[in-house]
Amino acid sequence: MANRNDTVCAISTPQGIGAIAVIRVSGPDALHYSSKLFKKSSSFDNLKNNIAKYEEIYDKEQLIDQVIVVKYFAPHSYTGENMVEISCHGSHFIIKKILEMLIQAGCRSAEAGEFTMRAFMNRKLDLPQAEAVSDLINSQTEASHKLAIKQLKGNISKKLEELRLKFVDLASMLELELDFSEEDVEFADRTQLLQLLSSIKSEVNKLIDSYKLGNNLKNGIPVAIVGEPNVGKSTLLNILLDEDRAIVSEIPGTTRDTIEEVITLDGISFRFIDTAGLRNSDNAIERIGIERSYKAIENAEIVLWLFDSSTGMPSHDNIENISKRTCLEGKNIIFIGNKIDKIKDQLTETVFQGHPLIYISAKEYKNINQLLKLITDACHINQLNDNTILTNVRHYDNLLRVNETIAVIEKSIASALPTDIIAIDVHAALEAIGAITGTVANEDILNNIFGKFCIGK
Amino acid sequence: MANRNDTVCAISTPQGIGAIAVIRVSGPDALHYSSKLFKKSSSFDNLKNNIAKYEEIYDKEQLIDQVIVVKYFAPHSYTGENMVEISCHGSHFIIKKILEMLIQAGCRSAEAGEFTMRAFMNRKLDLPQAEAVSDLINSQTEASHKLAIKQLKGNISKKLEELRLKFVDLASMLELELDFSEEDVEFADRTQLLQLLSSIKSEVNKLIDSYKLGNNLKNGIPVAIVGEPNVGKSTLLNILLDEDRAIVSEIPGTTRDTIEEVITLDGISFRFIDTAGLRNSDNAIERIGIERSYKAIENAEIVLWLFDSSTGMPSHDNIENISKRTCLEGKNIIFIGNKIDKIKDQLTETVFQGHPLIYISAKEYKNINQLLKLITDACHINQLNDNTILTNVRHYDNLLRVNETIAVIEKSIASALPTDIIAIDVHAALEAIGAITGTVANEDILNNIFGKFCIGK
Repeated sequence: MANRNDTVCAISTPQGIGAIAVIRVSGPDALHYSSKLFKKSSSFDNLKNNIAKYEEIYDKEQLIDQVIVVKYFAPHSYTGENMVEISCHGSHFIIKKILEMLIQAGCRSAEAGEFTMRAFMNRKLDLPQAEAVSDLINSQTEASHKLAIKQLKGNISKKLEELRLKFVDLASMLELELDFSEEDVEFADRTQLLQLLSSIKSEVNKLIDSYKLGNNLKNGIPVAIVGEPNVGKSTLLNILLDEDRAIVSEIPGTTRDTIEEVITLDGISFRFIDTAGLRNSDNAIERIGIERSYKAIENAEIVLWLFDSSTGMPSHDNIENISKRTCLEGKNIIFIGNKIDKIKDQLTETVFQGHPLIYISAKEYKNINQLLKLITDACHINQLNDNTILTNVRHYDNLLRVNETIAVIEKSIASALPTDIIAIDVHAALEAIGAITGTVANEDILNNIFGKFCIGK
Repeated sequence: MANRNDTVCAISTPQGIGAIAVIRVSGPDALHYSSKLFKKSSSFDNLKNNIAKYEEIYDKEQLIDQVIVVKYFAPHSYTGENMVEISCHGSHFIIKKILEMLIQAGCRSAEAGEFTMRAFMNRKLDLPQAEAVSDLINSQTEASHKLAIKQLKGNISKKLEELRLKFVDLASMLELELDFSEEDVEFADRTQLLQLLSSIKSEVNKLIDSYKLGNNLKNGIPVAIVGEPNVGKSTLLNILLDEDRAIVSEIPGTTRDTIEEVITLDGISFRFIDTAGLRNSDNAIERIGIERSYKAIENAEIVLWLFDSSTGMPSHDNIENISKRTCLEGKNIIFIGNKIDKIKDQLTETVFQGHPLIYISAKEYKNINQLLKLITDACHINQLNDNTILTNVRHYDNLLRVNETIAVIEKSIASALPTDIIAIDVHAALEAIGAITGTVANEDILNNIFGKFCIGK
């Protein structure tokens, strides 16, 4: 995307046949090039800003389509450039023809994300906001939509600006000292520096910690369904999905591959992972499956620990065994006693080993809704409203860099290294923050970010 | 679609994730219902006709999307009703949410084609023009696009209006006679009636005749590739398609099923049909294939008669045999001598049995472009510019009815039947024409026509 002084065009609506397709033209010559689509006698040239107007597109004498056009004059447009939006009939032939005519007039085909990239270049959006546009388009659930909207409104950018200003404070303290170093002024107060640094560090760590939740909310919270063989794990998955996804049989060890399916509950995506039953097996394939079950538990945010309530609670040994193989600490575990259809007693306990416990019958769809409520309660979705939540791996990576730099600075101060060395690290941290918001950004990073967008945005 | 006084909404862009999606709202309460998407303080209520304006959609306190809205006041809209068009981000969640909010506000989900049906009801379009909108959206080639545009501009409607006026003339001649029948006025001149009828008939027949071309241009002109086994029919198809579509081998009789593929040449769709080689075969499956080859020839507009030029021209017997089994009369036959790579002589004949002849090598891609030109020349595409061409089977069916009625009237006149009987048939013809343009149309017919549209149009 080297040349940004040219004028680009693209279809901005999804591929496929539809009632309407929207073609966007943006760049300094957008109005001039677009005018070539219309007859000389048309009113297009005199069309004012923001007016939606019926026009006819002609290729020589052949009417190509009846369209609605809107002109947006720079800088009052999405990209900040002159723009024209053409709403034509959603026919393959018409779309192709109009794009061909625009290219003949002088336009270039826009690359993926180029309209938003131009908006970024013209300071209509910063980089996290631009990324939020892509997240917004790809949002499938209420939670991921909410996160994208927050980011689009500049929530993360504001937080980063606060951090940046604190680093600027730090830098100016150090630079003042450097400026007057030959005049033997007093050193910047190291305690004060460390205090400022510590407050920055806690902010950065909060953001870094929020990434797990943010990423889970964006891509689906991983929920592992685990337990001994034949307790009804696959039956539960099928019930939750309302389809025959996993093969169910009376034979223990039926499931070998982990099966993953996304279910949306209360506006949040959950990735349910059905796993092989945990037992000592001689079967080599089953053993690989069981290894994968441990892996699934490790990656899970929520562990649904299924057991057969007709044969008693999970044994202490059993839990101990699993703990040895995978980390259960900090996991949201829900114990689920299945197959209550097989027993006469009313089971009422709601806690087991400090974790929620629920009795269900997957087969007879008993207490499934209560189970779903336990699952949605287990993810701390209420955090969503108040805090700044990181969802983007690029932001996360850069903040890890900031964090590392903070550690280096702390060490340098502790070792009483020269002020100019410390100042260099402070600038490195500033650069890492600037890389997130886009004040410091090279072509490769931009191409990487916008290349993931869809065409026409 | 019984109630057309309510307000409907639908997404008008194709399904799928995209930069932009357009949601349309139409009906008497379109402005009122849409206003519920925005905060009370928003400028939406004061928005003037045809202005594209940035607005924010809120569900209570939650920002749902940043959108561009345009109001179209009745009757200056596509449907002729009050309309609102919302360009939002093309995210599944956002589209679903906005449609839900509109439905909560009082809208109904629009049925397929309902916007265009409303445009028809409000006399923005007649029925052939409405049908042309659907054809236009589905047009894949220059030729089908051209036909749809002609129809959209009212080309067929004008022609039908001319016919209708001639029938009205006829009817008034007869009615004048009926009005004064008791006063013993002179009969309407039967010769004059028959002359008028004959001129109508010739017009109707021209339209009926144009249907074959129109339908072929819309759906693809059928081209059968025929010939004896192993002359290279499948190789030719693969060359034309530029892919390995048909299985090719040295073994005569490799192709059994007819294979059909659409290729666009010069803006026209051709449906190429590769057939089993024509020979006397003992193999039952091959014989079924050969039967299908004859069927393909029968349905073809153009027959590519392939032969192996290294073994001589198609024999008279061979042609005779095929003529016996299927009708070759009136077909555009092109004789193609394949495998010139196998012979040394320069073959220069260009006509065989009164049909074009061309020598090629499918294997070495020799003279293929010349062959393509022969194929495009064979369909009388020049008719497209001047004449009214029927593409719609509904129009065709109704015109056949008109034609039958003309025959009945002619017979009645010849048999000197009473004037009132003749008048009834003239009215039947008028009704058949009115059914095409939509002046006479019942709910079932309308539902049938608009049900084939895509949602949102």
